Amino acid sequence: MLTIDAVTQLDRSSNRRADAVWLAEQRRREASRFIVLIDLKPVIAPPAALLTLTPARVSELGLGGETPIFLGVDDRGSAWFALLLDGARAQSQSPTLPEQAVELRQLATEGVLAREALSLAGQARALGEWHRVNRCCSACGGMTAAKDGGWRRQCWSCGRETFPRTDPVVIMLPVCGDRCLMARGPHFPPETFSALAGFLEPGEDIERAVQREVLEEVGLTVGTVTYQESQPWPFPHSLMIGCRAEVADERLTIDPAEIAEAYWTTRAEGQLMLDGTHPLGRRAPGHHAIARELLVAFVEERPLRSFAR
Amino acid sequence: MLTIDAVTQLDRSSNRRADAVWLAEQRRREASRFIVLIDLKPVIAPPAALLTLTPARVSELGLGGETPIFLGVDDRGSAWFALLLDGARAQSQSPTLPEQAVELRQLATEGVLAREALSLAGQARALGEWHRVNRCCSACGGMTAAKDGGWRRQCWSCGRETFPRTDPVVIMLPVCGDRCLMARGPHFPPETFSALAGFLEPGEDIERAVQREVLEEVGLTVGTVTYQESQPWPFPHSLMIGCRAEVADERLTIDPAEIAEAYWTTRAEGQLMLDGTHPLGRRAPGHHAIARELLVAFVEERPLRSFAR
Repeated sequence: MLTIDAVTQLDRSSNRRADAVWLAEQRRREASRFIVLIDLKPVIAPPAALLTLTPARVSELGLGGETPIFLGVDDRGSAWFALLLDGARAQSQSPTLPEQAVELRQLATEGVLAREALSLAGQARALGEWHRVNRCCSACGGMTAAKDGGWRRQCWSCGRETFPRTDPVVIMLPVCGDRCLMARGPHFPPETFSALAGFLEPGEDIERAVQREVLEEVGLTVGTVTYQESQPWPFPHSLMIGCRAEVADERLTIDPAEIAEAYWTTRAEGQLMLDGTHPLGRRAPGHHAIARELLVAFVEERPLRSFAR
Repeated sequence: MLTIDAVTQLDRSSNRRADAVWLAEQRRREASRFIVLIDLKPVIAPPAALLTLTPARVSELGLGGETPIFLGVDDRGSAWFALLLDGARAQSQSPTLPEQAVELRQLATEGVLAREALSLAGQARALGEWHRVNRCCSACGGMTAAKDGGWRRQCWSCGRETFPRTDPVVIMLPVCGDRCLMARGPHFPPETFSALAGFLEPGEDIERAVQREVLEEVGLTVGTVTYQESQPWPFPHSLMIGCRAEVADERLTIDPAEIAEAYWTTRAEGQLMLDGTHPLGRRAPGHHAIARELLVAFVEERPLRSFAR
């Protein structure tokens, strides 16, 4: 059987989404593949792959009536879809499937899935959550229907269209000289430290959002902001924009609603946290998290160059 | 009279938004100021400022019953609000106001307003548009009410909360050796050329969104993607993420639905477009647009360094 791990990055083929005839053909084609999410939890083929179903298998399981989300086309020309089931429906049709459904966050943390499989499950989860809370039109309250292979919803009543939402989040490591600031939120697991983060607001650019969040959460005035890298984060549908934030003064004024504990960390100590050998048991974020990459770049002194305006 | 041009960047004071008593006090304080948008168009105090009203003036105009959006606090401690009126209401209360309302896009293009005033009007417009199309709960169809000075809406029926939406858009200048690609969309003004752009989709990071959009629109395979800068774009509520996209091959395959015309441009020709002296009348984007900054950085050979993963 094909597994998702054999698949390279999908071509999303967005120009195909509005072609209902083509999509219907693909849903029936023998070469097409379906991944399954139950209550937004990906169904796994143990030990380390996403379960992938053929159209025939989808019918056998009695799931043929569901309209799946179109994910894209692989390099062999096979179309990939995601079936989004609720737990009760899955239980009644195919009782073994729910037992294999695992929270995406757990899959990410444990690092069992290949990167592409995780990315595909994340894409499906983000879209699934968006569909779940967009059954109605936010303008008129009418019912909406999914269109374009799940990439658009339209109101039956007023005709308004809505598209999948992605919320930009800035996540940043404050750096002062040769130390960086690691912090814990009130709901973090014990001894786990990370970067600071917050939603970008309307009317802000990335740099201003970084400056505002750092000032609000720990009272530091940020000078230069440098973009490092970004990451989709499907909980529920965010884009994490990872930055370094240079500050000139180390004195903290903590907002206790946001931050339980924050402290300045040397490169050597950051390395111990990354290695899992910190004497006080302090831990860096897991391998799936962009916050870890921000710390790694700092510890390894990788060059980050800001754009000179 | 205070004008908005005297105001430096506002402190958004997001921790104050949930304090209804404090907000009500600020709405009455003599030092507080209100800007006005009618059908999302900012009202101008000619020739070059946003109209700003005191609480007393708001009452005189019969607009005291409206609940304004809280924008933030200036460096003198004065709170700033935005009154969002529909045209019919404004016309009946104060017939001169609608005559002074100007489309924000026009204000941006003409460069009449100071940068901070434009930013504030943009913030108010983005929030206003979000409120306009979020009267109902997208999950259950119930009615929603504005909370937190206009920064949250909550459903009366199911209690679901929703927050202002910002859509990340990648905008990028493809560069091949010493030439960059300038393009026109089918609906652009004549002879106006810009960078490529498109919405980032769920499950993508910035780099992949750039690669996908460039491939879809002009058929080029992108190598290195370098972040340059970002800009809020309140039409209706986007975050423009400006990048350079390095390509190795100049051969184009245009998607006519997206692109009417695209051509490779030298630095010298780009400079003529920026200067408005191009012999064929080709024009660069206006001074308000991040696409212009992408072209300027290319023409001036400003250093852009990508982060080495």
